[in-house]
Amino acid sequence: MYIGIDIGGSHISAGLVNQDGKIISRAEVPNNSRRDYKEISKDLADLCKQLMDSANLSLKDIQSIGVGIPGSCNDKIGESIYANNLNLSHAPIRAEFQKYIPYPIHIENDANCAALAENYFGAAKGASISITITLGTGIGAGIVIDNKIFSGFNSCGSELGHSVIVVDGPLCTCGRNGCFEVFSTTQGLIRIAEDLLKNNKNSDIFKQVNGDLSKINGKIIFDAVRNQDKIAEEILSIYLKYLSEGIVNIENFLMPEVIVLGGSISKSGDIFLEPLKKLVAKKVYAGNRIPHADIRLAQLENDAGIIGAAMLGR
Amino acid sequence: MYIGIDIGGSHISAGLVNQDGKIISRAEVPNNSRRDYKEISKDLADLCKQLMDSANLSLKDIQSIGVGIPGSCNDKIGESIYANNLNLSHAPIRAEFQKYIPYPIHIENDANCAALAENYFGAAKGASISITITLGTGIGAGIVIDNKIFSGFNSCGSELGHSVIVVDGPLCTCGRNGCFEVFSTTQGLIRIAEDLLKNNKNSDIFKQVNGDLSKINGKIIFDAVRNQDKIAEEILSIYLKYLSEGIVNIENFLMPEVIVLGGSISKSGDIFLEPLKKLVAKKVYAGNRIPHADIRLAQLENDAGIIGAAMLGR
Repeated sequence: MYIGIDIGGSHISAGLVNQDGKIISRAEVPNNSRRDYKEISKDLADLCKQLMDSANLSLKDIQSIGVGIPGSCNDKIGESIYANNLNLSHAPIRAEFQKYIPYPIHIENDANCAALAENYFGAAKGASISITITLGTGIGAGIVIDNKIFSGFNSCGSELGHSVIVVDGPLCTCGRNGCFEVFSTTQGLIRIAEDLLKNNKNSDIFKQVNGDLSKINGKIIFDAVRNQDKIAEEILSIYLKYLSEGIVNIENFLMPEVIVLGGSISKSGDIFLEPLKKLVAKKVYAGNRIPHADIRLAQLENDAGIIGAAMLGR
Repeated sequence: MYIGIDIGGSHISAGLVNQDGKIISRAEVPNNSRRDYKEISKDLADLCKQLMDSANLSLKDIQSIGVGIPGSCNDKIGESIYANNLNLSHAPIRAEFQKYIPYPIHIENDANCAALAENYFGAAKGASISITITLGTGIGAGIVIDNKIFSGFNSCGSELGHSVIVVDGPLCTCGRNGCFEVFSTTQGLIRIAEDLLKNNKNSDIFKQVNGDLSKINGKIIFDAVRNQDKIAEEILSIYLKYLSEGIVNIENFLMPEVIVLGGSISKSGDIFLEPLKKLVAKKVYAGNRIPHADIRLAQLENDAGIIGAAMLGR
């Protein structure tokens, strides 16, 4: 049995995970951006105890404990190095955790955990090289090579969202201009919609939000696409153009066997996936002369963080 | 002792390479784009025999034979899969070679061979992850992880030149628009120069080519930069802006320990390297909060292909 813990901005979620990647039991505590690594590490230990108690297990029954963190981690030294949204920069989480439970613990970036979970048990099961990309309010991405997370010499790699696809484009949170993340998040989709709707007030979307463009969200846009609203189709087409450029860049760089797309946008399913696949196939290097990555929708979604963290020590 | 062979468009060059990566003896035959894999494979065998004879060695003294090819290769099946400029698509080179010499032979993309050589014996010696990029008439690139070439599930990866940095930018040879290769080759540098010189006829460069812009080359531009010609400095500054965006993309993706730059442009040395390093340091993800790749000039240059090919079976 394994324990996986996913540290999020509002909650810390933990699960007892079996060798087939199924979550057998769960536990959760609240979190916020001000708490430091000492408070969080105590929570991690408490959650482990709670999970073991619930299943009447002791430490000798646990094969490994892993923790996913929304930031850059260095598992070699057991530290969270840099976290944008939490108080976890240069935080020696492992040493602090071990004050409560003297047991090995692995720490890793949460997007990398999700990628590992999809590679072990989800959409990329069995792939020799897979990349999992979460399209949400930001871009999360993880690279798995031969069942192991690849994150560069400094453990901070696979920042696939922060590659410029439009030099001098709109400003990104990372300080550069025109990053893939700027165009491929939900915010990127909404920005395209806002631009087009200014001069197209007879779209379904405009009616849905009663003319208040600040109320547009991804669901409203995709619902309008399903209703064959012309403006919504144009919004999706522009969005997919930029998304496909970023995906082709990733393919040409790394030639993974499988690319997994997760996050809120991917939940729109085939209406998004099928036209994306066609665009990618048209642009990818050497076209149909060589085999290329299969692009699939994520299967584990919100549980991927816990499951992947649990597998870190496997 | 090892044998490395580098198949080029005009010549096939071979070398007997010792375990320290030194070329002990050389042999060469002409090549052209029309010759097929059967003719070329016979040449490979003849070159091997010639090298062994020259050093009074037999096959039992040779630890491995490797061949670098300007195209995509699959060493698992011993075939050259796709070559843009040579008649070597779907060519079973290994099987054909073994008709003449019944001995294991490894085949690999030539840019990957160069990257392996720099990682073993050159500018990236000892790096856990290195990327070698050749800036010439095209962009060649190879990724080395833990002393092994990484080229994706289909052996065709690390096409780092074919990642779009300007959506809807100028057309690339791969069929996409705005690839890194369009901006970072010698041709990219010259295009910037041509654009600027149309309206700036009192530049040194304009005088050097007697007003004939078709005669501009990289050397003339860099010479003018050294003479502090304002227009030449502006040309270099625009070139470095695009080059640095591509390099930062590569860093953020893969976080290599070392990035090696080779090819004709990199021969300009510090005048090019130092400002490039500054631009990259400003833009790279998480800035100085985490360690980053060291950017260095290639050391092995024209010999890298032979030396790397020789190391394929090591």
